Amino acid sequence: MKLNNLNDLFLHELQDIYSAENQITKALPVMMEACSSDKLRTAFQDHLEMTERQIDRLDRVFELMGQKASGEHCKAMEGIIKEAESMMKEKAEAEVMDAALIASAQRVEHYEIAAYGTVCTYAKQLGLTDVMDLLHETLEEEKMTDQLLTQIAETSINLKAQ
Amino acid sequence: MKLNNLNDLFLHELQDIYSAENQITKALPVMMEACSSDKLRTAFQDHLEMTERQIDRLDRVFELMGQKASGEHCKAMEGIIKEAESMMKEKAEAEVMDAALIASAQRVEHYEIAAYGTVCTYAKQLGLTDVMDLLHETLEEEKMTDQLLTQIAETSINLKAQ
Repeated sequence: MKLNNLNDLFLHELQDIYSAENQITKALPVMMEACSSDKLRTAFQDHLEMTERQIDRLDRVFELMGQKASGEHCKAMEGIIKEAESMMKEKAEAEVMDAALIASAQRVEHYEIAAYGTVCTYAKQLGLTDVMDLLHETLEEEKMTDQLLTQIAETSINLKAQ
Repeated sequence: MKLNNLNDLFLHELQDIYSAENQITKALPVMMEACSSDKLRTAFQDHLEMTERQIDRLDRVFELMGQKASGEHCKAMEGIIKEAESMMKEKAEAEVMDAALIASAQRVEHYEIAAYGTVCTYAKQLGLTDVMDLLHETLEEEKMTDQLLTQIAETSINLKAQ
């Protein structure tokens, strides 16, 4: 299907994000198993639950747009997760692995910040206020998660890894 | 090689970024060819030159660390670029393709913001002030590039795509 206008591109980007979020729900439990820090494992568990709510929110976005979430596969998130999986296979001290898991998770978060930032801008320009509000809520959550991970890294995990 | 401490992880992350930057220098010329907007093409050209300077800066970082940049391959950047390539193969109006190229480029930038953010934090904690200054300079450039792309999207490209 040809992308004729910003609305077509918007739907294309939403499908990409939908795939990314679903890939994240499968990756987080694996990352939780690789964790040694209880604090970090709890942060990942909380983020898994948040991600599930974000997928529900995307379902509502598709509903408001009169569209269905479909099978577009996000190759970028696949790559980001592949890299995290490679890291989890490295031999590492437990505390160093925790620091590495945070580094991987922040790459995931930043992908989402970029992707949600883009679709928020499109929704605003297309005058889709309700849709924009939903997407903006998730964008703010992703930014907060990124900040939380920085805080856990700087105040605890990285110090132990050193 | 086992990752025994934060210094080992720091070197591992630097190798990942080095690979990511080198992949970007190959992707940007392809994205420039897919551009219709002169403004966007110029921004990509400027960023290509900036990326080359950032690679020189990483070479100096490795030198300061007494290490060599090696063959670690960044799977995440490979995925992000694969996604951009898929997008460039889509049938799209020229203005819509320009908007899509910005969306892809901002995903690249955010990967780098996450990655440089991580190594800046490590360098600071490891007390490597000179190294941290170099990495921080690049981090600020990546943030500025991301903001520039947002500005081009919002004031020009997305309006034309609509």
